[in-house]
Amino acid sequence: MRFHRQTISVEEATRRLLSELERQGEEQIAIYEAAGRILARDITATCDLPPFDRSPLDGFAVRAADTAGASADRPVTLEVVETIAAGEVPRIALGPGKATRIMTGAMLPEGADAVIMFEQTEQPGQLAREVRLKRSLRAGENLSRRGEEVPAGSVVAKAGERINPGTLAILATFGYKWVPVVKKPRIGLLSTGPELLGIDEPLVPGKIRNSNAIMLAAMIAEAGGIPVMLEGLPDEPAAAKARLAACLEDVDMLVTSGGVSVGDFDVIASLADEPDVALLFNKVAMRPGSPTTALRYQNKLICALSGNPGACFLGACLFLLPAVRTLSGEQTGASPGPTIWATLGETYDKPCPYPRYLRGRLTEEGGRLYVWPDWNHKAGNLCTMSMSECFAIIPPGGRGKQAGELVEVLPHAMPSWERVQV
Amino acid sequence: MRFHRQTISVEEATRRLLSELERQGEEQIAIYEAAGRILARDITATCDLPPFDRSPLDGFAVRAADTAGASADRPVTLEVVETIAAGEVPRIALGPGKATRIMTGAMLPEGADAVIMFEQTEQPGQLAREVRLKRSLRAGENLSRRGEEVPAGSVVAKAGERINPGTLAILATFGYKWVPVVKKPRIGLLSTGPELLGIDEPLVPGKIRNSNAIMLAAMIAEAGGIPVMLEGLPDEPAAAKARLAACLEDVDMLVTSGGVSVGDFDVIASLADEPDVALLFNKVAMRPGSPTTALRYQNKLICALSGNPGACFLGACLFLLPAVRTLSGEQTGASPGPTIWATLGETYDKPCPYPRYLRGRLTEEGGRLYVWPDWNHKAGNLCTMSMSECFAIIPPGGRGKQAGELVEVLPHAMPSWERVQV
Repeated sequence: MRFHRQTISVEEATRRLLSELERQGEEQIAIYEAAGRILARDITATCDLPPFDRSPLDGFAVRAADTAGASADRPVTLEVVETIAAGEVPRIALGPGKATRIMTGAMLPEGADAVIMFEQTEQPGQLAREVRLKRSLRAGENLSRRGEEVPAGSVVAKAGERINPGTLAILATFGYKWVPVVKKPRIGLLSTGPELLGIDEPLVPGKIRNSNAIMLAAMIAEAGGIPVMLEGLPDEPAAAKARLAACLEDVDMLVTSGGVSVGDFDVIASLADEPDVALLFNKVAMRPGSPTTALRYQNKLICALSGNPGACFLGACLFLLPAVRTLSGEQTGASPGPTIWATLGETYDKPCPYPRYLRGRLTEEGGRLYVWPDWNHKAGNLCTMSMSECFAIIPPGGRGKQAGELVEVLPHAMPSWERVQV
Repeated sequence: MRFHRQTISVEEATRRLLSELERQGEEQIAIYEAAGRILARDITATCDLPPFDRSPLDGFAVRAADTAGASADRPVTLEVVETIAAGEVPRIALGPGKATRIMTGAMLPEGADAVIMFEQTEQPGQLAREVRLKRSLRAGENLSRRGEEVPAGSVVAKAGERINPGTLAILATFGYKWVPVVKKPRIGLLSTGPELLGIDEPLVPGKIRNSNAIMLAAMIAEAGGIPVMLEGLPDEPAAAKARLAACLEDVDMLVTSGGVSVGDFDVIASLADEPDVALLFNKVAMRPGSPTTALRYQNKLICALSGNPGACFLGACLFLLPAVRTLSGEQTGASPGPTIWATLGETYDKPCPYPRYLRGRLTEEGGRLYVWPDWNHKAGNLCTMSMSECFAIIPPGGRGKQAGELVEVLPHAMPSWERVQV
């Protein structure tokens, strides 16, 4: 299998991988812990919103009919019967010729059908027994009616949504102190390769420090998984297989980096030949990272990324993160994300047998999107990864794409809308 | 000051607020805790990258001169002198007619000036004393030279950058187990208003649950601050002032929601009249949230947002988050973020005396950006806040903007590039 691989498209590889995965179970957590988690169920409004007729401003609740003909020159005078602060319940129903001094968010008194703002009355700062209105009002003016935003029972947030600050406001409003969320998947992380040193080890000739593990751990955590750092994989295939089996017991999925290529010591590549390991794919039509591999072993998935930092990063965006999001039950998790189209800012004419994913950044000019590929196109380039916001996808073939042509773009981070050259 | 306020622009308000703030001090943290933090210093490469000449693929290191004339029909035969795995140091320098079997990432032997991939040799899977090359190579082909990506001493990440997965890969590569970051600012959170209930309290007439505090706490945490939840503010101005003074001792900045308007019980508005409280602004040319206020008291800032959820959210995006980012030392923190231009998807023709910030979403069509305002334009609308990705800024005046016109857009979250109607 090492040298004779069947190439499949990114889309087909994604489909094969994600179709193996099921959403994790559900748990109840306190709302204070819920930011960034995925809702396991639809959330319904437990009351009308607003829960009562209320004033949207500071002023006077009135009967619109009483205000007819009022103007700055000929103000209408009403008797003020009480003052209602937010949180209070009015005690006096408004009769003809009466007004209630009322604050933003306060409950309207019975009989009121309009609110005039302080600034449209005379001497608004003064508490007085009378108010003089400088304009007339229509019935219904400046009122928030009970349930006008959402009636009780409506779905206000959907299963599969990631809880953001706005979702928290909804949950708090409707009294959800406990929130049903999907359990976080545990993702085991293994790096392969005898050349790898720990972060705090001194460099020695021929070796490099392991940069993929901590990068992948951060990506997994951002996507909503729990990264579980595991010790490196042995070189020898039987020992490696035993170690994988042990690791898989404790996690919902395993991700490895390195060892997927055609080298003599590529232990992941050799595993694909084992009878009890199912190969989902081991060659994807993409650059970098075409030897990216996925296996099923002990009924769990192993997502095996390239060891090359750039290929590892791309593979994580295309395969690992959608897998984590699918396990997490995120609605938008079933693919690497929607692609968009943008005008290529600079010509890229290197030929490639497969679609090439160039890291880049987005800008806007006159309402048009532009994508600027990383100036350093080497797959292994590690030092520009932190600046990347998206991948510009250059179609396969000999001609690449010229500046000014539209290209497909896969966003992976929030754009800063600034072009930064490293 | 309550009714007679000086209106200033969003830009001027931002300038006044941020010019009061200084970056927090620095601390060293373990790389494992560093995701999302802001670098306090430039990070330099502690070695060349790559640290040695290496092979970017699995194959044979050769002397290009030896390969002249090789083809599939007339292969060139070289003697294989050793096999080098990644992490190993070659023992044998290549002489004429010799080759070294070499794996991806492994150190090149002395004398080699090109690498041929396995697939371009005969019987690549087989370990043998000879290799037959099916093509010729140029000197320098398929080599990664020491330092070609980054020479030692180069700045590879800058002070003020937020540490993302790519930054972590850089830090790990260069052995930064400890990372200099800016200390997280502590942001105190106070909600004002006797109408507010806790999340787990049952609704009673006239009252609503506090949804702003938890929303703001999540926004502060996302921006890199430590939200410090404080008890509500008393109604009575002297008691409120004493409480603010006590709260300010324990935090770097205070944010409040509610109490900024012209109501009789708007305690923040009344504070602006106190002689030992400096008013930075209390009226901003924007809708919603024009009474947004900023004060300096006890030599610290109080950012006082509207109580209305939509106005509170906008005020937080425009003022609070840039303040948190400035305290955190983030490079891009000095404004609410760059605005972009997008084609308005739907006409919005409601007149407004001030620029109106409509929550919305971005889409792309044919390489052009479109912005779709929230269908429910009421400022107080809480249930669509979770779907918002940006604000479309409708300029002041009577005509609004027509569908198809370009409008200025302030992004505040990563676009999903999907139009979702709630």
